[in-house]
Parts: sequence; structure tokens; C-alpha cells
Amino acid sequence: MAKQLSGAGLRGQVAGKTALSTVGKSGSGLTYRGYDIKDLASHCQFEEVAYLILKGKLPNQRELDDYKTKLIGLRALPQALKDVLERIPAAAHPMDVLRTGCSMLGNLETEQDFSQQQEATDRMLACFPSIICYWYRYSHDGVRINTQTHDDSIGGHFLHMLHDGAPKTLHEQVMHVSLILYAEHEFNASTFTARVCASTLSDIHSCVTGAIGSLRGPLHGGANEAAMEMIEKFTSADDAEKQMLGMLERKEKIMGFGHAIYSESDPRNAIIKGWAEKLAQDTGDTVLYPVSVRCEEVMWREKKLFCNADFFHASAYNFMGIPTKLFTPIFVMSRLTGWAAHIMEQRADNRIIRPSAEYTGEALRSVPPIAQRD
Amino acid sequence: MAKQLSGAGLRGQVAGKTALSTVGKSGSGLTYRGYDIKDLASHCQFEEVAYLILKGKLPNQRELDDYKTKLIGLRALPQALKDVLERIPAAAHPMDVLRTGCSMLGNLETEQDFSQQQEATDRMLACFPSIICYWYRYSHDGVRINTQTHDDSIGGHFLHMLHDGAPKTLHEQVMHVSLILYAEHEFNASTFTARVCASTLSDIHSCVTGAIGSLRGPLHGGANEAAMEMIEKFTSADDAEKQMLGMLERKEKIMGFGHAIYSESDPRNAIIKGWAEKLAQDTGDTVLYPVSVRCEEVMWREKKLFCNADFFHASAYNFMGIPTKLFTPIFVMSRLTGWAAHIMEQRADNRIIRPSAEYTGEALRSVPPIAQRD
Repeated sequence: MAKQLSGAGLRGQVAGKTALSTVGKSGSGLTYRGYDIKDLASHCQFEEVAYLILKGKLPNQRELDDYKTKLIGLRALPQALKDVLERIPAAAHPMDVLRTGCSMLGNLETEQDFSQQQEATDRMLACFPSIICYWYRYSHDGVRINTQTHDDSIGGHFLHMLHDGAPKTLHEQVMHVSLILYAEHEFNASTFTARVCASTLSDIHSCVTGAIGSLRGPLHGGANEAAMEMIEKFTSADDAEKQMLGMLERKEKIMGFGHAIYSESDPRNAIIKGWAEKLAQDTGDTVLYPVSVRCEEVMWREKKLFCNADFFHASAYNFMGIPTKLFTPIFVMSRLTGWAAHIMEQRADNRIIRPSAEYTGEALRSVPPIAQRD
Repeated sequence: MAKQLSGAGLRGQVAGKTALSTVGKSGSGLTYRGYDIKDLASHCQFEEVAYLILKGKLPNQRELDDYKTKLIGLRALPQALKDVLERIPAAAHPMDVLRTGCSMLGNLETEQDFSQQQEATDRMLACFPSIICYWYRYSHDGVRINTQTHDDSIGGHFLHMLHDGAPKTLHEQVMHVSLILYAEHEFNASTFTARVCASTLSDIHSCVTGAIGSLRGPLHGGANEAAMEMIEKFTSADDAEKQMLGMLERKEKIMGFGHAIYSESDPRNAIIKGWAEKLAQDTGDTVLYPVSVRCEEVMWREKKLFCNADFFHASAYNFMGIPTKLFTPIFVMSRLTGWAAHIMEQRADNRIIRPSAEYTGEALRSVPPIAQRD
């Protein structure tokens, strides 16, 4: 039996092949199909990157236009799905809502065979923002929104439904960047969940439903929400420094810093930080952005820990008026592209994922008659 | 980078520790917490085995009585969950229904912290049969059943709701055996899905929802249904032999035989086969059981392949009047115990499960302007 400790969490163990991304490879921090994340975030819309990840190439103008038109046409929700969302209480965890919405969609528009995987993915990509906002607005504001907006982008569609009006150009731009940054990240826990499920040859809604459940975990997708909950308590940069030093002294967990794979920096941080600064200027913020910058300085000076993708996402989303509890569902709207591409990759060269365990339990023993048990 | 092929599907790689079961260890084919499956299936009710798996010991009489009383009290479904089930069409895959029902339950009775894990599991154990039967009877028979029966066992509760009347003693007995045989099986794909999800510290409904999605796959939980679809086409033992030889010659996939871990026999087969024979005698069957026996002989003679747990489950369930499409949901009613115990085990000694991938994609390249793309 192999040694267990070295393999805890399968860290560093190869669990399959992928052509989708590299994480922390020398020369470039993060690439999608060979393109550097910085390059993609500077020059592309999210729909271009989704197309790249799902269909294997960057679209030309006609392909992009067609793809966006197609996605715009898939935003409406079936009545039965709306009925389900209306029965989920306002106090529910939005990730549980999305998990249930995705699962319900699988009952109404079941993937019958793998030839439908691209269509099923496009449908989820177009309607996940609708699911989140329909439930949120119904449970919180008591309104039944029309999810069929004509916004040009997925991010714009989301902001429009959330705020009941067309988004500012800057906000739509930031959503493109944010969704690009979160789209794909190799064999992280939620993606690996999707691949394990796909390896049984289950349907795509099962795989994505499972992945949403994994992303919900505080060790995975919840970090931007936790970062927000921390920084919104600080009243100034100096207050942030003082309070963080106290947290560090008390060894409290501080979210949004460090990474399981990256060792020196997270290539996504500088990008979203730049946009958070622009948003701060635009909204006239004098607290949240300086607080965030000071947190970054303190964590580097005291612990040599760098901000990961989640930290400046917190202030950026906040500046756009997004409620904190919807931060992780935005992650889903984006990462869905990576999950779906990994599911397709697993299906194309499949062996069921069935590892072994080291047994640490009782030796063989007989069942005592019930009258003789303690 | 490690070699990939030897690790395909992580076969033989240790992905964690467990004290719950051994599979294919010499001396005993399958043990739960040290007890041989044959011993458990001969002497226990399913609720005793569920208690063993979930709480770590075989219950004494008082503990068993209390546990059964508790489970009986948890069979009712919240109105919002019934509303959801009523919106799922009759043509839906019952595993999609159960996945959605479990996910919805997570919105209504969310596990707030891990101290609630045993309570949340008992609730699912008690109400999964209610979810399946409420949807099945509503969508197929147009009736809203009362799920709060007073049957003594989970299996009896299921059969009662399905057939609208108290089950025969023999049938309730077979349900005990069947649910015991399917309860736990180490790091199979659905259990591993639950553990990957649990490793992000997500809630138990997310973990179980994901596991249901994985069990749905035809390489995993669907084998007893596939076996039934095959044997019900055969009109006699001789017809079965003739048709199977044809299928083997055409290299068609035959479900219900062989196993990823067991190499010589599946210890669960002899047990369920014995009960299938009793059921055949009881119902006066002269076709399905002899057909099943002949299939077993032909596969062993021609291919040295043995029946796994699923093969004689097909005829056994059929003799009890269970519709084929509900076979895999019964598997869930049982395996839930193993999943939940693995989730608890993962939480008690956790590291996030995040393996690596071998990169097979494009080298680093620049993003071309959209006007210059093919």
C-alpha cells in the first residue's frame, strides 16, 4: 500500500490530461488554450473566451456575433423552473439556489446524449444569470422579472436584471474582465468534481450541479465573499492595518490571500486590482479601495502572502452594487465554461475515476446477536 | 511530470483513508466496519447497518428501536418540496428527480454547520423514499400520496408508498437485504464525488446531490436497470443462451457482470441470488429466474465473467413489482449511508482534494486581433 501522507488531497498527483489551461507554469501564470490570461483580459470580451474554452478557438467577428446572438436568445426560463425558484426562501444560500436551478433544468431539458453537450452548455451559460436574478429579485423585492433582456453581454444581462436598468459601460467592461479571470483553472476541486461525475458517463447537468456544490465550499469559491465581509468592517486604511495586525496576532484566518498552486503571486490579481481602482475613482470611493491596498501591503510585509484573484474582486463587485452573497454565483456564471470543457474532455477519453483508500478501520469480526450488544 | 497512463482513473492510487469498509481484501470480499457483508445480510435489518455505518457501532435493541422511531417521524415532505416534485414531468429520469429533491431540501433545511451532519443524514435517509414515491405516484398516477406511513422499515415504507398498501413480509425482508448490500463500497465514483465536494467544506446536501449525479451514470449505478432491460427480452433460458451468444459474438456490452475491483466474484451476488430464487418461487415465476441463471452460466462459461451485485437485483426488484426506472433510486436510498459516513470522515481529517493534470495543449501564443482570425 502506498504511503498516504504524501498524497493527501492528491496534491501533485496527475489525475488526467487537459489541453485547456496551465496554472503556475514558468513564464506565464495562467493560460487558457495557450493564451496568457493578461492578454485575454486586455483584448477580449468574456463571450470570446467562453467560445475559446468551449469550442477550441478564438472566434472571428462573425462567429462572435453569431454566438452572442445565440446566447441572447437562450435567456428565458421555463415556467416550471420559475415556479421552483419562487419556492426557495430569501434566506437560502444563493449557491444552493443555483445548484437547484441547474438540477431542475436537467429535468426539463435533459441532455439525452453527448451530441447535445455544446447546446446544453450554451443554454446554461445564457440562463444561469437569469436563474440567480429571478430568484434574488423575487425573494428579495417581490417582483417577477423578465429575464429576456437584450443586453449585449452575459455580464450586462446580469447587472441589468439585478439593478432593473441597463448597466454603465464601465461596469459591463469590468464584468467581462472578471468573468474571463474566473473562467478556467485546471483541476481545482469543483472542476475535478465535474470530471469524476463525467467519468461515470452521467449527463452534463449532473456534472455541473455537482461542481456548483463543490464551489460552494468556503475553502473554494467563497473567498471573495469572506474578503468583503472583512474589508467592509474597516473604516480607513490605518484602521485596516491596526485590525489586521490584531487578527494576525490572534492567528485568525484571513481570506483572499495565498494559493494552493501559485507560490509568488496570482496573475489575476494585478488585473482585477487595476479595475477596482478605476471603479473606486468612478464612484468617488475614499475608503474601500485604500483599505484593500493597505490589506495587501500588510499581508505581504507581515506574512509574505499575496492577494489571490478573490481579494480585489470583493471591492470591485461592491463598487458595482452587487450584494455580497451573489459573489460566488458570479464565479459559477464564469467557471461553467471551464467545467463544461473539462466534462467534454473527460468524455472524449474516459476511464471511470475510482481511486483506492488506505484502510484504517476494525479487523474482521463477527456480528454479535442484538441481545449481546453494548 | 509523472507518467499518466498508469494513473488513468486514479486506479490503485490512494486518495485518502477510510475506516468504513474493505473491498476485495483477502479473506473477505466486502466488510463494513470489520463485519462481513454475508454476516450483516444474514442477521441484520438495514436500519442496524445504517446505524453501524453512520454512528460507528451496531445498535443494541433499545438504540435500534429509538433509531427506527426517529426515522419514521422524519418521513413527511415540506410543502415547497412537494410543489417542486409536482413540477417535474413524468418523463424525467428518476435520478434527476432525486438529485433535484435533495438539492431543494438543502434550501429548506440547510445544514448550518457540521454539528448538524447526523441529523441532516437521518432526515435524508427517512425522506428520500418519500421524494421518489411522491414524484412517481403524482406524475404517473396523478395522486398526491401521504408519505407519513407507519411501516417499520425504510424498505417497507418505500414499497407501501409505491404500491399503495402494506408490503408482504418477504418483500420487506428482501428490501432489508438489498439495502444492506448496496450501502457502502469504499472510494467508488459517487462516494469519491461526495468526498471531493466535502473537501471544500461545503454542506452535506451539496455533497449528496453531487453523489447522486455521479451514481446516475451508466458506468456506475445504472447497471441493474440495464440488466433488467436485457433479461426481460428473453422468453426462456434457451432463448437467453442463444441471444447472449449472439450478443457476445457481436461484442455488445452486457451489463451486470464483472467488477472494477473484484476479480473472481462479487460477494453480494450469491446473497441476492438466493433471495431472487425465493421471490421467484413465491410469485410462481418460470421465466425470469431461469433466464437469469442461464445468463450467469453462459457468461462464466464463455467469458469467465461473474455476476456482480446488480445482476440478480434486476429480477428480485422485478418480482416485487418495482418499475425498472426506480432501481437506481433504491441504490441511492441505501448508498446514502456510505456517502454520509465518508463525508463525515473527510471533514474530520480534511485537506482539499486538488490533483494535478498533465498538459497536452497549445504552447504559449499571442491573442490575434479579431479581424485577423480565421
